[in-house]
Amino acid sequence: MLLEQIQKTNDIKNIAPADYPLLAEEIRQFLIDKISVTGGHLGSNLGAVELTMALHLALNLPEDKIVWDVGHQSYTHKLLTGRREGFDMLRKYGGMSGFPKRKESDCDCFDTGHSSTSISAGLGLVRARDIQGKKNTVISVIGDGALTGGMAYEALNNAARMESNFIIILNDNNMSISENVGGVSKYLNNIRTSNAYLDVKDNIYDAVRRTKYGDGVVTGVRRVKNSLKQLVIPGMWFEDIGITYLGPVDGHDVNGLVRVIREAKRRKNCVLIHVMTQKGKGYGPAEKHPARFHGAEPFDVATGVPLKKKTKASYTDIFSTVMVKLAARHEDVVAITAAMPDGTGLKRFRSLYPGRFFDVGIAEEHAVTFAAGLAVGGLHPVVAIYSSFLQRAYDQILHDVCLQNLPVIFAIDRAGLVGSDGETHQGIFDLSYLSSIPNMHIMAPKNKWELSDMMKFAYECKCPVAIRYPRGEAYEGLQEKRTPVRMGKSEMLYEESGIALLAVGSMVPAALSVRERLKEQGEACTLVNARFVKPIDEEMIIRLLKNHRLLVTMEENVASGGFGERVRMLADERKADARVLAITIPDEYVEHGNVDILKKEIGIDEDSILEKIMKERKRQ
Amino acid sequence: MLLEQIQKTNDIKNIAPADYPLLAEEIRQFLIDKISVTGGHLGSNLGAVELTMALHLALNLPEDKIVWDVGHQSYTHKLLTGRREGFDMLRKYGGMSGFPKRKESDCDCFDTGHSSTSISAGLGLVRARDIQGKKNTVISVIGDGALTGGMAYEALNNAARMESNFIIILNDNNMSISENVGGVSKYLNNIRTSNAYLDVKDNIYDAVRRTKYGDGVVTGVRRVKNSLKQLVIPGMWFEDIGITYLGPVDGHDVNGLVRVIREAKRRKNCVLIHVMTQKGKGYGPAEKHPARFHGAEPFDVATGVPLKKKTKASYTDIFSTVMVKLAARHEDVVAITAAMPDGTGLKRFRSLYPGRFFDVGIAEEHAVTFAAGLAVGGLHPVVAIYSSFLQRAYDQILHDVCLQNLPVIFAIDRAGLVGSDGETHQGIFDLSYLSSIPNMHIMAPKNKWELSDMMKFAYECKCPVAIRYPRGEAYEGLQEKRTPVRMGKSEMLYEESGIALLAVGSMVPAALSVRERLKEQGEACTLVNARFVKPIDEEMIIRLLKNHRLLVTMEENVASGGFGERVRMLADERKADARVLAITIPDEYVEHGNVDILKKEIGIDEDSILEKIMKERKRQ
Repeated sequence: MLLEQIQKTNDIKNIAPADYPLLAEEIRQFLIDKISVTGGHLGSNLGAVELTMALHLALNLPEDKIVWDVGHQSYTHKLLTGRREGFDMLRKYGGMSGFPKRKESDCDCFDTGHSSTSISAGLGLVRARDIQGKKNTVISVIGDGALTGGMAYEALNNAARMESNFIIILNDNNMSISENVGGVSKYLNNIRTSNAYLDVKDNIYDAVRRTKYGDGVVTGVRRVKNSLKQLVIPGMWFEDIGITYLGPVDGHDVNGLVRVIREAKRRKNCVLIHVMTQKGKGYGPAEKHPARFHGAEPFDVATGVPLKKKTKASYTDIFSTVMVKLAARHEDVVAITAAMPDGTGLKRFRSLYPGRFFDVGIAEEHAVTFAAGLAVGGLHPVVAIYSSFLQRAYDQILHDVCLQNLPVIFAIDRAGLVGSDGETHQGIFDLSYLSSIPNMHIMAPKNKWELSDMMKFAYECKCPVAIRYPRGEAYEGLQEKRTPVRMGKSEMLYEESGIALLAVGSMVPAALSVRERLKEQGEACTLVNARFVKPIDEEMIIRLLKNHRLLVTMEENVASGGFGERVRMLADERKADARVLAITIPDEYVEHGNVDILKKEIGIDEDSILEKIMKERKRQ
Repeated sequence: MLLEQIQKTNDIKNIAPADYPLLAEEIRQFLIDKISVTGGHLGSNLGAVELTMALHLALNLPEDKIVWDVGHQSYTHKLLTGRREGFDMLRKYGGMSGFPKRKESDCDCFDTGHSSTSISAGLGLVRARDIQGKKNTVISVIGDGALTGGMAYEALNNAARMESNFIIILNDNNMSISENVGGVSKYLNNIRTSNAYLDVKDNIYDAVRRTKYGDGVVTGVRRVKNSLKQLVIPGMWFEDIGITYLGPVDGHDVNGLVRVIREAKRRKNCVLIHVMTQKGKGYGPAEKHPARFHGAEPFDVATGVPLKKKTKASYTDIFSTVMVKLAARHEDVVAITAAMPDGTGLKRFRSLYPGRFFDVGIAEEHAVTFAAGLAVGGLHPVVAIYSSFLQRAYDQILHDVCLQNLPVIFAIDRAGLVGSDGETHQGIFDLSYLSSIPNMHIMAPKNKWELSDMMKFAYECKCPVAIRYPRGEAYEGLQEKRTPVRMGKSEMLYEESGIALLAVGSMVPAALSVRERLKEQGEACTLVNARFVKPIDEEMIIRLLKNHRLLVTMEENVASGGFGERVRMLADERKADARVLAITIPDEYVEHGNVDILKKEIGIDEDSILEKIMKERKRQ
């Protein structure tokens, strides 16, 4: 095993070049074996094996810096920096993260998770290097999907005027998580299919330059030399703004990649290396179904079939169904995703209503303001974006949708703890950032039927509405409790006295169990499904404060600006006798791991809640 | 007066083409006369006179739609749509807004204020039009400055694949508010200086096409025709991604503009018209000092000199001074602005430390993640961005700076009510959106000396710190109260009993007056300067709750997630006897107008606060 020889950073440099293909194969087999057990990002990592090897060969880590955009393609990098043992606990609580983490290794120079940040961060490292007179190389590795995000462009615009070395590697697999969209993608595709490979082009360029035929013909156009360059170099889009373009190069040829990276290191400006890779390379099922193997659950290596059969419908599935129904009933319903037609459950909508479906690429800001435009134009858009990614569009929600009080529905999936993706992906801030916005309405369903009812209600509202629901299986309990959704009204599930539990969406099932256990201990216990976080049901809360000794709010969101804080405010305003206990996510980032474990760790699991309640009862 | 003949929308179509130059002159004179009295955006409006006339001539309003990016260049549009009378009350409370407002006119189709939203919004209007089978024209007018914002690029990427008509007008004056930066700007400048004007180029293109010389020479490169096009058309950057480029065209030639807009309307895809304009055109002082006349205070028409002499230093001035001092003392201090070196007060820093100063263009997202990169690289960046614009970077603050707990200082100017720019520019959400973020520290100074002290303290913190301060004159009272800033500690200014006022930053002066008036009425009154919003000074608040009957919090921020809510939470947690009254901005957008009037309207002026306190006292 060549892989055995790689115990720590730079060990790869001892491998003979002739063995690179074999090493690549071993790495792929290792990744497939491990990820098939733990789950994780497979396709992007299989695509970046040779590229990562080349980077480690051409660079001197940890002095040189690699910023991995998004970061889910950093597995080979982890493997080559002495973290092989970590793969057994990949993405598990206390184990190795699926993303670069500075605390894990001095070879991880910048934590990533969300898309399109790497060029900005890399540029910061470059400027810091120059100001301090250091000489290390900085390379940002960004996918073509991430290049549809506006931040990447803002950064390119700034990188363009660099007068010292900065290398951007465009890892182009012609995919985001799903297929890529938009003009930039089309442009990159043109390059890919032009058959004008690097070496060939250089030759042509020389030939053309020798003939000097241009001067006579193109009188009146001054920039002849530049224009000739445009004639033969495909990457003029980058060259135009001042970035040296090298490529396209084969992303699975280690030696070729090492050569071009070394060439790039010699330039005194920003260089973009356009590397062509294949997502899922080397594993048949992943090559065939790149979206399915983007973030994979544990699977059978021989067949690629997931080990655990999905039985219950997820909230995403429910959303998927209700969207199709809504669209059938209302012609003005249109749907928007930011590069996640699968993840958000809009695939069926897309196939049934292609003309009313918009995948805008990884571009959450545009997605939201585009929705505002659609709404002003007379339609009723539904924007489906994960909680943590919607953070990107805070200003657009505030400034473009809510200021004009437009009928836009935000379907916020992955709200609350998401588990193995960790800190960067936890959806634990949306209740706070959305509550601060005037005209916004925020709901959270207790079970699958309520998500459906809330979507229909939101449509009738004709105003900005956000519905947040968690990752994973939709709760199927409490089917018998299906009362009409009314604006700003919570739902009384069980009315007693003593203790009142007031739970937001995903916390209702936990509240139900807590109630059962309290009752076993002889406590009378009311349970209310909050339904609305904004506007909050003041009437109900005041009533609960009057009739109970203790009010317990529960939400999968940080405290500041959340539901519990608002309830406390009302309690204080009225100087209520009842005590209020707010169960929230603490004011800290929550790492990766199984959601049940995480909940226990941060004290929002049933046991912890029960314990906190009993402690509070003793104080009374 | 030709202008007299324009009473309502489309009246301009009755003006004889020969009179267009005269009309343009009259409009300019009108704008100069009015804005010199009211203040307002002058330069951008003077630059867009002919362009707006041409749009109104070539389009059929209100059926056709114009989306004005940022919107401060829409004065001529307002003038041509029957709002001439509005200019006397421009940007005044109850008067006409300085930005497009749907509630003002059916010719204002989309409200704007922040930069780079117009293409996204326009694209939404286009898709809505097509889905509904309508035939109107949609035009987004965007400046070259706004084109440095990532959203604009996200939208261009999506517009590129349109198969129906959508027109983008690039109003290129080679300026943001200050000079433009970055590769895109350089690229546009290359076009500008290429002398290859539209008509000429078309001829050359034909000529080149006829010779067909290319085929023989460029063997191996398939896209010859496209490449030839690259040879002669300057806008290949746009053409490359699939957007038809028309231009550059003279932005002060009404007839030429009308022709090119009509030509653009015939295309069945997205067309970008590159229009060259001069900011401030027709008014000498504004042509010479475009930054100064971007947003102008009332001025003397003959000389261009502001009518009101500035006497006291603004918070921006104080920040400017302390930055220079910090930089002199600490080599690792670097400064970042998003296109506002003047507005944020970083001009002096730039001239003294050009190598440590970064203007990233209108690109708040990049600015923040770039700062994170600089911090990881070993520097101590200060990011100076207005409160409402920093909303754009919520995710970057959360995901790139605070998650890694990096030493980045956010200098947040224009926090609180800003006045005449209105709804889109009020800085009334920052305490909320920043408080939700773990690891963040938030301060607000009571006066000019404290801003200086807080900046120095923030530098020593080596963690994420935000300091928010308001627009306008820095408070110079309470100089004698200058105690060291300590982490998470508030400052006791006057300790008595009865009522305790607990004020955040800009509200301290008001609290001081309120205290005086309460004392006149025989009330004992404590006054505490909060200093920290996060971490909040729990110890002090608990002490105040014990010793007082009433606690009054004051902040220029919405309630949800703000300071008062947090204090209430603490009060409820302890079931304090003391009542808490939270003075905050109500949960609504606050329109334009004089800040003093606005404060009265929303009940946070001294009289209203006093009244609320007295009412609360009576309840006790």
